[in-house]
Amino acid sequence: MNNAQWIINGNPKGRALMAEDFLKQSAELPDLGDGEVRVKVELLSFDPSQKGQMENIGYAAATEFGQVMRASGIGEVIESRAERLSVGTKVMGSLGWQQYATLPAHQLEPLSEGVPVSAHLGPLGATGLTAYFGLLRVGKPLAGDTVLVSGAAGATGSIVGQLAKLSGCRVVGIAGGPEKCAWLINELGFDAAIDYKNDRVKSAIREACPNGVNVFFDNVGGSILNDALACIALNARVVICGGISRYQEAVLPAGPANYFNLVFQRASMLGFLVSDYAAEFPVARARLAAWLESGSLLYKEDVQEGFDQIPATLQRVFDGANFGKQLLRLD
Amino acid sequence: MNNAQWIINGNPKGRALMAEDFLKQSAELPDLGDGEVRVKVELLSFDPSQKGQMENIGYAAATEFGQVMRASGIGEVIESRAERLSVGTKVMGSLGWQQYATLPAHQLEPLSEGVPVSAHLGPLGATGLTAYFGLLRVGKPLAGDTVLVSGAAGATGSIVGQLAKLSGCRVVGIAGGPEKCAWLINELGFDAAIDYKNDRVKSAIREACPNGVNVFFDNVGGSILNDALACIALNARVVICGGISRYQEAVLPAGPANYFNLVFQRASMLGFLVSDYAAEFPVARARLAAWLESGSLLYKEDVQEGFDQIPATLQRVFDGANFGKQLLRLD
Repeated sequence: MNNAQWIINGNPKGRALMAEDFLKQSAELPDLGDGEVRVKVELLSFDPSQKGQMENIGYAAATEFGQVMRASGIGEVIESRAERLSVGTKVMGSLGWQQYATLPAHQLEPLSEGVPVSAHLGPLGATGLTAYFGLLRVGKPLAGDTVLVSGAAGATGSIVGQLAKLSGCRVVGIAGGPEKCAWLINELGFDAAIDYKNDRVKSAIREACPNGVNVFFDNVGGSILNDALACIALNARVVICGGISRYQEAVLPAGPANYFNLVFQRASMLGFLVSDYAAEFPVARARLAAWLESGSLLYKEDVQEGFDQIPATLQRVFDGANFGKQLLRLD
Repeated sequence: MNNAQWIINGNPKGRALMAEDFLKQSAELPDLGDGEVRVKVELLSFDPSQKGQMENIGYAAATEFGQVMRASGIGEVIESRAERLSVGTKVMGSLGWQQYATLPAHQLEPLSEGVPVSAHLGPLGATGLTAYFGLLRVGKPLAGDTVLVSGAAGATGSIVGQLAKLSGCRVVGIAGGPEKCAWLINELGFDAAIDYKNDRVKSAIREACPNGVNVFFDNVGGSILNDALACIALNARVVICGGISRYQEAVLPAGPANYFNLVFQRASMLGFLVSDYAAEFPVARARLAAWLESGSLLYKEDVQEGFDQIPATLQRVFDGANFGKQLLRLD
């Protein structure tokens, strides 16, 4: 049986992704080893850090030309030489951009029940865990705090904002366009939303956060980070999660000129990687699942279709074209 | 009796100080009120934050044109209507750029004995306290850590480096010129020194800090901060104390492009103001005094002379012309 795959064929450092960065190939499926299973890939997750992996800039182990592009996904076990996972089990794991993944069973996780399958790649996956630990453990919001989130309509940002509401905070989101801003306020319960494409961001932050920003959760970087730094309150925590405005630039963009406001406000700018909190993932997943079931936590998905659309779907994340967690369903 | 004073006559925001920013005047001495004392000013302290006060950018209450320029100093009580301070007592306090200061006695502190008088403006004054709290309470060095200090031959930086040595750390200083670098290594016991005027800073940091920088104490900002951020270790603390490279620029200089390395290294950038630790000043002063007496803590002073030289002496701090704590002795 043949296995269609997308392999890495370029390093996109300092530029946008191009079609030539990936090559489609067809590989013979290997025999199953002892303890291994074969998974038919059904759903793939897309995340800005995947471009970072291709650039080998620190998030993950080095990526090589000719490797199958790594990606989290969900699929069904169709062959098994492992007692732990029988044929027919739905699993998630690092399946990659391919039709079939052949993996040791211990690298896969059977999906828990009671929530939609795809939620395991969104609010219960790396996205939700990043929001949970980045906001609660790094940002440390107190009830009554004002929490500002950039990329607020994105997969991570939208969870951050809702977790901040659950924590008793005033929540302000920054997103691109009136449709996303309306969703934040009307569906997710944000207190205010700023449309960075149409509003003057700094004055809009000042207006929406009259007592200053206690926690800023940044997915964007660039001028939005700089404007937020101008508006921080005493002892503010600026959580650096992502910097999507930087990921396609040939020359490293300037940093935030207002960083020195950290001194006047006795504030901190904090980096983190979600993997450091792995020991606490089970507790976090259980809480996130309970909030999903009770309807306290909503999420949106943008599901593209078809194996051939995989590379173009990753670029959507950098164009801000997705509205909700970016996924793709294989044929 | 007449009192010569220097009053504020300009706002130096976005530029270097100019002679016209200060005016010399002669004022009649006021009568002493109940509880007040008259102090003959003997020694003045100079610090970058004094320019910041003139710009009213957050360090201190608003400064007004026509006010006597504020400054910490040491003097002798020559008249007293307060029981607490008798004539002849040496005191320190906010005396200002003038020959005689008339103040409520409770705003002055009699000098403790056992250390040289001028040390109360350096290692036992705001300088030493800033180093103590910024390094120990904000930077939180562990024995075995590598601590990097910019402005290392300055009044604050030189104390920071020595406190880091006392904490069991490897200490690397960045300073301007071979003379200052030699002093750091030969007199203060730094493990290495980088001459930013002659070395390539980033590669010199990498060489001097082969395991990365655990604590970076920054007095400078600009390209030195950016280079240091490229060399931080896992969980590093970047303590922002000063940004002297920024204080004379018309346009706010770009921030550190490498700030995003905080994410990969799970590091933090931390602002602080020493005044927040006022409750702990007595403990810190006692420890600093003990280290001074035992010879574990050395310091250097740059003492200018004469009332007319006061404004020019402040500019020395921004030119890096001073080698050691900048002081001035009145005629």
